[in-house]
Amino acid sequence: MKVVVLVGGVGGAKLAYGLAQVLPPNDLTVIVNTADDLWLYGLRVCPDLDTIMYTLSGLVDKTNGWGISGDTRNTLNVLSRYGEDTWFGLGDQDMATHILRTRMLQAGYTLTEVTERLTKSLGISQRVLPMTDVPVATIVDTKEHGELEFQEYFVRHRWQPTVTGLRFAGIEQAVMNEAVESALTQAEIMLIGPSNPWLSIDPILAVPGMREAIQARSVPRVAVSPIVGGTAIKGPAAKLMAELGYEVSAEAVALYYGNLINGFVYDQMDAGLNIPISQTANFETIMKTDEDKVLLAQNVLDWIQKWV
Amino acid sequence: MKVVVLVGGVGGAKLAYGLAQVLPPNDLTVIVNTADDLWLYGLRVCPDLDTIMYTLSGLVDKTNGWGISGDTRNTLNVLSRYGEDTWFGLGDQDMATHILRTRMLQAGYTLTEVTERLTKSLGISQRVLPMTDVPVATIVDTKEHGELEFQEYFVRHRWQPTVTGLRFAGIEQAVMNEAVESALTQAEIMLIGPSNPWLSIDPILAVPGMREAIQARSVPRVAVSPIVGGTAIKGPAAKLMAELGYEVSAEAVALYYGNLINGFVYDQMDAGLNIPISQTANFETIMKTDEDKVLLAQNVLDWIQKWV
Repeated sequence: MKVVVLVGGVGGAKLAYGLAQVLPPNDLTVIVNTADDLWLYGLRVCPDLDTIMYTLSGLVDKTNGWGISGDTRNTLNVLSRYGEDTWFGLGDQDMATHILRTRMLQAGYTLTEVTERLTKSLGISQRVLPMTDVPVATIVDTKEHGELEFQEYFVRHRWQPTVTGLRFAGIEQAVMNEAVESALTQAEIMLIGPSNPWLSIDPILAVPGMREAIQARSVPRVAVSPIVGGTAIKGPAAKLMAELGYEVSAEAVALYYGNLINGFVYDQMDAGLNIPISQTANFETIMKTDEDKVLLAQNVLDWIQKWV
Repeated sequence: MKVVVLVGGVGGAKLAYGLAQVLPPNDLTVIVNTADDLWLYGLRVCPDLDTIMYTLSGLVDKTNGWGISGDTRNTLNVLSRYGEDTWFGLGDQDMATHILRTRMLQAGYTLTEVTERLTKSLGISQRVLPMTDVPVATIVDTKEHGELEFQEYFVRHRWQPTVTGLRFAGIEQAVMNEAVESALTQAEIMLIGPSNPWLSIDPILAVPGMREAIQARSVPRVAVSPIVGGTAIKGPAAKLMAELGYEVSAEAVALYYGNLINGFVYDQMDAGLNIPISQTANFETIMKTDEDKVLLAQNVLDWIQKWV
C-alpha cells in the first residue's frame, strides 16, 4: 500500500514517524516543505527536512521536536564570540548536516540527491523528498515589520507579528522533480500531515503542477487537522488563521483544503463538528509519545482501508 | 621597537606568544605560513593561522599546541556517520572559525581581512597576517606515495613517508599584500620562529618579493633554531632534514638560512657548535610552559638590543 505524506515541521514529522513504524519502508514517501530553508553562516539549513530526518532516525530531541537529542552548541557560541548574530539555534551535531549539505549543493548535487545521501547514512529506509530542488522562500507580510523571511518571522520574532499575507518567492521557477512526480503517480493513499496548512503545506501545493498531480488521483487524499479544540497543538497555526480571517477550527481547515482532499481526520475532542468532506473520522490526534504517533498512523490507515 | 616574526605552526606560535607578552601590542606583527591551508568539508581551514590565533588568545589546547582547549568533536562525529572521511580533526568551537572564514572568503573578503576580524573578536591586539591572500599549497613529493598535499602527508600519513622534494603550488601567483610589505618596511627587528624551515618558513620566503624585502633591511634578522641537540622538538623537521640530505643540526639550519639572516639563536644544549652567522646566542629554547615562552622572547630581544 504505497503511501505519500506531505509534511512541514514537527507535527507532520510525528505522523511520518508513526507511518514509518506501521508500513514497509518501501511503501512510504515523505514530501517535505522546503520554503522554510535559509542560509545561515554560509550554510544551507533546511529545518523541515532536518526535523523529518532526525525524527525518522530517532535522533530527534523529543522535548523540542526538532534538533538532535543531547546536542551541544559549541560552534554557535564561538560564532557569537566572533560577533555573529546567532539568533537561529544550530547544534554541533546538527551542524554536520548543514556543512555536508552545503558542500554537496555547491558541488552540483540536487537537494533531492543530498537528502537521499543524508537519510541513507542515518539508516532511514523511507524516501524523504524535498518538494522541489529549486530554492523557494516563504515571505511573511506583517503588520509590524512589513515583509519578513520565514525564519525571521518564526524564530527571531517567535511568530508574534500579525500576519497580513504570505507569498512564496521563487515558486514560479520551482520544478516538481521526477521522484516526487513518480511517488504521486504511484501513491495508493495520499496524506497531508497535521502541519500548518498555510506555512507548511501551501508551499508544497504551490509548486507548479503539484496540486493538480494530487487532485488528479482518484485515491484517498486525507488531511489530518492541525487544529484541535479550536487551537493549534504547536506553533502559529491558530494565531495565523485568525489573522488571515478564518475561523479557528478543524472545520475551517477542511474547508480550506476543499476538494483537494476527499477525507479528513480530526481530533475526537472535536467530535460533532460538521466537516464538509465526504469521508471523515475523529481519533486521538495529539501525539505526545511514540505510541501516540504509531496509534494515529495505524488508525488513519485502518480507517482509510475500510472506506476504499 | 617594531618586531616582525615569521612563523608556521606550534613552535613559532609559542615564540609569538612570548613576544606578545613582552612587547606593546602595536609593536608585534606575526606573518604566518598559509601553504598548509586546505579545504575540508567545503570549509577553508588555515591550520597555522588558527594555531597562532588560539595561542595568542589563550584559547589553545596546550597539550596538543593546536586546537581549542576542551573542545568537543560532535560535528565531526556526525560527519563521520554521514560517511565522510574525517581524517583531519576539527573541534566544534574550532569549526566556527572555519565556517565564518569560508563565508567571508566567499563574500569576497581577503584572508587578511578575515584574519583581522577573527583576531580582533578574540581580543588579540597584535597584527596577525597571512603571508599572502592568494591560495598556495605545499605539495610533498614522497618515495612511497608520490605527491601528497601537505596535510595528507602531515596528518593522514603522520609525516611517515620519505620526502624526496617539496613545491609550493600557486606560489608564482602569490602576491605579498600591503600589510605584510608595510610591516617588513617598518620592522626594527625581524625574527624567524623555531618553525620548520622547509615546511613552514620556506613557503613564506617563496612569496615573490618576500625574501628580497627581508634581506634588503639592514636590521637584525634573527632565526631561532627548531633543531635542538640534533633533533626536532616536535614534528618532522629532523626527519625531513635527513631525507633531504642535510646534517640534522642547528648549524645546518643556520647554513640553510644563510645570508637571509644575520643573527641566530640556538639551544644552550648545542653550545659549542660552530654557527657561521655573524651574531649568535644560545638560550634555553625548549618552551614547555608559558614562562618558558616569555623568557625566550625576552632573552632574544635583550640580546639583539645589545648587539644593535
